[in-house]
Amino acid sequence: MATITVPPSPLSPVEDAKKLRKAFQGLGTDEKTVIEILSHRSAGQRLAIAKAYAHLYGESLLERLHSELSGDFRKAVMLWTMDPAERDAKLANKALKRKGDRDLWVIIEVACASSPDHLVAVRKAYCSLYSSSMEEEVAQSFSTVHPLSKLLVRLLTSYRYSGDHVDSELAKYEAALLSDAVKSNQIGHDDVIRILSSRNKSQLKETFKYYNENYGKHIVEDIEVIDKNQFTRLLKTAIWCLASPENHFAEVVRTSVVGLGTDEDSLTRAIVTRAEIDLEKIKEEYKIRYKTTLRADVIGDTSGDYKRFLLALVGSEDP
Amino acid sequence: MATITVPPSPLSPVEDAKKLRKAFQGLGTDEKTVIEILSHRSAGQRLAIAKAYAHLYGESLLERLHSELSGDFRKAVMLWTMDPAERDAKLANKALKRKGDRDLWVIIEVACASSPDHLVAVRKAYCSLYSSSMEEEVAQSFSTVHPLSKLLVRLLTSYRYSGDHVDSELAKYEAALLSDAVKSNQIGHDDVIRILSSRNKSQLKETFKYYNENYGKHIVEDIEVIDKNQFTRLLKTAIWCLASPENHFAEVVRTSVVGLGTDEDSLTRAIVTRAEIDLEKIKEEYKIRYKTTLRADVIGDTSGDYKRFLLALVGSEDP
Repeated sequence: MATITVPPSPLSPVEDAKKLRKAFQGLGTDEKTVIEILSHRSAGQRLAIAKAYAHLYGESLLERLHSELSGDFRKAVMLWTMDPAERDAKLANKALKRKGDRDLWVIIEVACASSPDHLVAVRKAYCSLYSSSMEEEVAQSFSTVHPLSKLLVRLLTSYRYSGDHVDSELAKYEAALLSDAVKSNQIGHDDVIRILSSRNKSQLKETFKYYNENYGKHIVEDIEVIDKNQFTRLLKTAIWCLASPENHFAEVVRTSVVGLGTDEDSLTRAIVTRAEIDLEKIKEEYKIRYKTTLRADVIGDTSGDYKRFLLALVGSEDP
Repeated sequence: MATITVPPSPLSPVEDAKKLRKAFQGLGTDEKTVIEILSHRSAGQRLAIAKAYAHLYGESLLERLHSELSGDFRKAVMLWTMDPAERDAKLANKALKRKGDRDLWVIIEVACASSPDHLVAVRKAYCSLYSSSMEEEVAQSFSTVHPLSKLLVRLLTSYRYSGDHVDSELAKYEAALLSDAVKSNQIGHDDVIRILSSRNKSQLKETFKYYNENYGKHIVEDIEVIDKNQFTRLLKTAIWCLASPENHFAEVVRTSVVGLGTDEDSLTRAIVTRAEIDLEKIKEEYKIRYKTTLRADVIGDTSGDYKRFLLALVGSEDP
């Protein structure tokens, strides 16, 4: 459930490109028009506009946006205008340089909360941009960190069956395997990684359901009480991203606005990458969990064009 | 270097489809025409013919070929006419049911001797055909067989950078890691699997070159003297498929014709899957290694339409 609204008969890509060009010219940039156009176009339309713009004016729309805009507003608009696969490859590359928990969220989001085809497109874009494969970087960066390296590589290289075929007997059996691993404090066991990285998402939901029914708690709650190391924290993130990404992204937004200062990069990422996928669902989850709305939190923590742009993507308060 | 020859101005797909239809009609099938058309068309042209055929006659070309032809000739023509990604997914599925060394060659060929995009296309086709992912099947089938399971899954799920960027220092370093693993009899070590499954092929060739220069032998020769178990045998196959697939496929053809009886399935697979990729190189390697020609061995071990079809794919003796 996307939150962005596209007008029923938008301008053609050429007309949009012309309006954007006009917004860039003269003294100062007309940010209102930039927001008005780009925030109300789908990924395919935005790519068509960028193509038309390059064709008409012999310059890259992204480069022009870079020189016209600034700060968090610029970052957000550029991430939104980029090809989504290239965008995620760039986010992943930046994350791999930093390697903190929150950085690695990006890797898990791409690996677990994307469609199999999008994940492949990101890996392809990564190879083109960085002359190395994503899994190569991950495997090398974390080669001494077992079983985290294994988990990340296996999640990143998956191409899951994306239909809804579910095998209940298998789900029961694998829920038991997961429970054994939790009880014996062997949560990094090969079986755990194999199940999470190869089973289709419908199957995994069924497995977690059986786990909950037969072993008393949600698996994530059980993992939380095991060692609080980087592996268990990221394993939890992976389970959320696989079974209910709205839970994870609500948390990303919330943690980016609470406390002193805002983590704009995370806020931007969550909104930009999910606006066309499940931001509506994330907003619902947010309301239930934090007793406030995501929109209200964005309003409270951002300002200016950045705020206006994010709000255009977030959409109205009540769907 | 492909071996098949496509006429400079072939018939249109519609004309080809009509000629095939005519070949099927009447008493008996005109196999000569079937061979003449299909063996001299590229993968794209064959798919266009199948599409035109279905459109014109409301029946599947593959199904019709199945009912018109028989034996090894039928198998070969059908594999040749199928979409290459679907073909490899079907071959892999059959191999995973049997699990012998020679069967697993198929998995390694798909994983290591294909382009990254073809490998992804095969994984996609596998999901569509079997409602499960290839790595899911492999991981489950071999979950108790370490480190074979890890090797197969990691090779199968790779999406390597396919440019020719090579880092010589890294190659030296990783050649040393491989040598350490060989010397300490730890050939299933994580580093070995990481290197083989994530580095690009040009990089790997450089690594094997350094290995050879600094440690006296080709890595495959060193692996051969370690335990002769399924893991080391398949590791060897993977190294050939990555660094010089012509070596591996020459061996596939040779082992399929020597001794009593012919292994037609392997012979067909090697010729059909490589005819448009590197069969010319395989023929050269064959000559050097076995002091006879691949064409001569096909002539000696096959007969009838099957022989005529394979020879049309194999091409002339001297390129």
